[in-house]
Amino acid sequence: MLNFSYQNPTRIVFGKDQLNQLAKLIPAGSKVLMLYGGGSIKHNGVYDQVVAALAGFDWQEFSGIEPNPSFETLMKAADLVREQKIDFLLPVGGGSVIDGAKFVAAAAVYPGDAWDILANRGKVESAIALGCVLTLPATGTESNGNSVVTRYETQQKLSFSSSLVYPQFAILDPTVTFSLPPRQVANGVVDAFVHVIEQYLTYPVNAPVQDRFAEGLLQTLVEQGPKALSEPDNYDVRANIMWAATMALNGLIGQGVPQDWATHMIGHEITAVYGLDHAQTLAIVLPALMQQQRAQKREKLLQFGRRVWQLSHQDEERLIDDTISHTRAFFEQMGVPTRLADYGIAADAVDKLVAKLQANGMLKLGEHGDIDLDVSRQILQKAV
Amino acid sequence: MLNFSYQNPTRIVFGKDQLNQLAKLIPAGSKVLMLYGGGSIKHNGVYDQVVAALAGFDWQEFSGIEPNPSFETLMKAADLVREQKIDFLLPVGGGSVIDGAKFVAAAAVYPGDAWDILANRGKVESAIALGCVLTLPATGTESNGNSVVTRYETQQKLSFSSSLVYPQFAILDPTVTFSLPPRQVANGVVDAFVHVIEQYLTYPVNAPVQDRFAEGLLQTLVEQGPKALSEPDNYDVRANIMWAATMALNGLIGQGVPQDWATHMIGHEITAVYGLDHAQTLAIVLPALMQQQRAQKREKLLQFGRRVWQLSHQDEERLIDDTISHTRAFFEQMGVPTRLADYGIAADAVDKLVAKLQANGMLKLGEHGDIDLDVSRQILQKAV
Repeated sequence: MLNFSYQNPTRIVFGKDQLNQLAKLIPAGSKVLMLYGGGSIKHNGVYDQVVAALAGFDWQEFSGIEPNPSFETLMKAADLVREQKIDFLLPVGGGSVIDGAKFVAAAAVYPGDAWDILANRGKVESAIALGCVLTLPATGTESNGNSVVTRYETQQKLSFSSSLVYPQFAILDPTVTFSLPPRQVANGVVDAFVHVIEQYLTYPVNAPVQDRFAEGLLQTLVEQGPKALSEPDNYDVRANIMWAATMALNGLIGQGVPQDWATHMIGHEITAVYGLDHAQTLAIVLPALMQQQRAQKREKLLQFGRRVWQLSHQDEERLIDDTISHTRAFFEQMGVPTRLADYGIAADAVDKLVAKLQANGMLKLGEHGDIDLDVSRQILQKAV
Repeated sequence: MLNFSYQNPTRIVFGKDQLNQLAKLIPAGSKVLMLYGGGSIKHNGVYDQVVAALAGFDWQEFSGIEPNPSFETLMKAADLVREQKIDFLLPVGGGSVIDGAKFVAAAAVYPGDAWDILANRGKVESAIALGCVLTLPATGTESNGNSVVTRYETQQKLSFSSSLVYPQFAILDPTVTFSLPPRQVANGVVDAFVHVIEQYLTYPVNAPVQDRFAEGLLQTLVEQGPKALSEPDNYDVRANIMWAATMALNGLIGQGVPQDWATHMIGHEITAVYGLDHAQTLAIVLPALMQQQRAQKREKLLQFGRRVWQLSHQDEERLIDDTISHTRAFFEQMGVPTRLADYGIAADAVDKLVAKLQANGMLKLGEHGDIDLDVSRQILQKAV
């Protein structure tokens, strides 16, 4: 096991009717900015419940945060925070809204050009406090310090991390997810699955707690994911997916083990250039990456196949082949296609995407840092 | 899954040479009281490293905290904290020292008779800050808000919990555990194992993440525990046990699921009356409790047997029998006997222990609250 230092300060408030805790969770006397996206929270009752909870606070709202939240929109929110002397942010929505609010929290008090936070590793020295209401289980952003933001103008999708932007609390009510469109449910399951994979499918370091936890999350997503599509009102199914998605990226399972994240970095470029959903890009890249990296990931591919897909072939090459095909089939079963062509993207995309990776300095990806532009090209060629 | 609210603020600093982080982790300017036990830290180098780290602080020490820390000793430490205006406690040791320091943290600023915290659910409204250096993986106290204290005068072993006594940090260096006596290693493994069981072996609530995490910890302890005895200098083995023991009782795996804790409550009386090690009492009580509660725990006993002990009998009664015997055999393999008689305790102990349970109000134990004094008696009779 590798050394680590881990702390996760977010309070998780999980279950039916937990929105009724909201008023108590926001620090008394806060001047609150509620942030949300396109208004789906106005159709499922969440908006009204949040407004009711905010009755005792001085508050305002900011809507229109995009899926893949844009730098341009978020800077408007940051201006508002400064002008109105907001001191608590309350994102209500999925990963995009919460990621966006984290950037707003940092940008509003950043002394220089806030773009530096994303593009030039500008250090976040302070941030506005935030707490969140999660409506779409997927990214784990509700209890981590990560944020991904897209600058549409330059087609750049970039991220930052800071311990200062962990939400103080996250309210997770699985019933809120009953009304999600199937595409968003499926995307969430695929996203969480790949988050686990990025922290698990590397090379062994004798860390059985982390491995078993990761495998438990993968098994849960494989069992529960398809049920969420076929039984959308099944509370336990929704609850299990929601908890698995949080645990997939609250940092815990990645402590003391190598991490990959190449699938994410390559996928971000596909979203930046072609606008695909984040999870769609992961479903495209991961099976191709598993194939291209089968030598480097050999031992963990075998363990993954045996423990998660319950494969027991004697022939190890065949076992790895089947591990990859089971993974691809799971994404397809969730309704998320796994090849660029399925989204109408032609083979000439490979060059464009490699050029974007180069422009963003993504030259040494993966747990060994050996996925250079040439290897990324080979991965993308396998994803055509 | 049941509703829950969970937050764990402790920073875990894990791995080789992590004691060198200590000086940075204690708030600058703190007036520190280092607390420890019988002096084993003076033989393994930990004391010297801690003293070196404290060079920049105004600090004092308090030694002599017993295994099963005594109310009497801890009240002396609380007096010292008040007299010397200590504002940071640094327990260095195993569960007893850290549990003891938590009680000191609360007792030193408690407005009334501090015994009320343990005996009369006196509410802890404030506490001195603390951080810890763990030298014995077992109890999970390094990242939870629980503490167990014994009053020798009245043979009472009682507990309290408060979010105010979570350590701010816990330094876990597995190399520090190389020199532990085999009995303490074995006790730690058994203790952690039973902590998991108390949060797992109840009844199903469709919570696969929690179940898989619990099973992963149990599998890890079963695999690694015997190796810690046979290969005492194996770093990875020590690291895996240390991390498993923390995860077993940092609260995470118990969120959203029923919990039992009857084995602990009955075991505490055995320690209070006969002075046995905590883990010895758990090894005595658990197999007897599993047998007595086999109907109530039927579904989870089967799942435990299949997933952790890899049993596959068609006959479910035989599968449960073997699940219990495998559990007992594991404790025995670790060198921890599983019957009262093995410790020279005669059958008349049953009456004494039931009387103690009655005196301490332990009348409705277990996940269903149906382990009354009569059932506790039956459990103890099976443990003779």
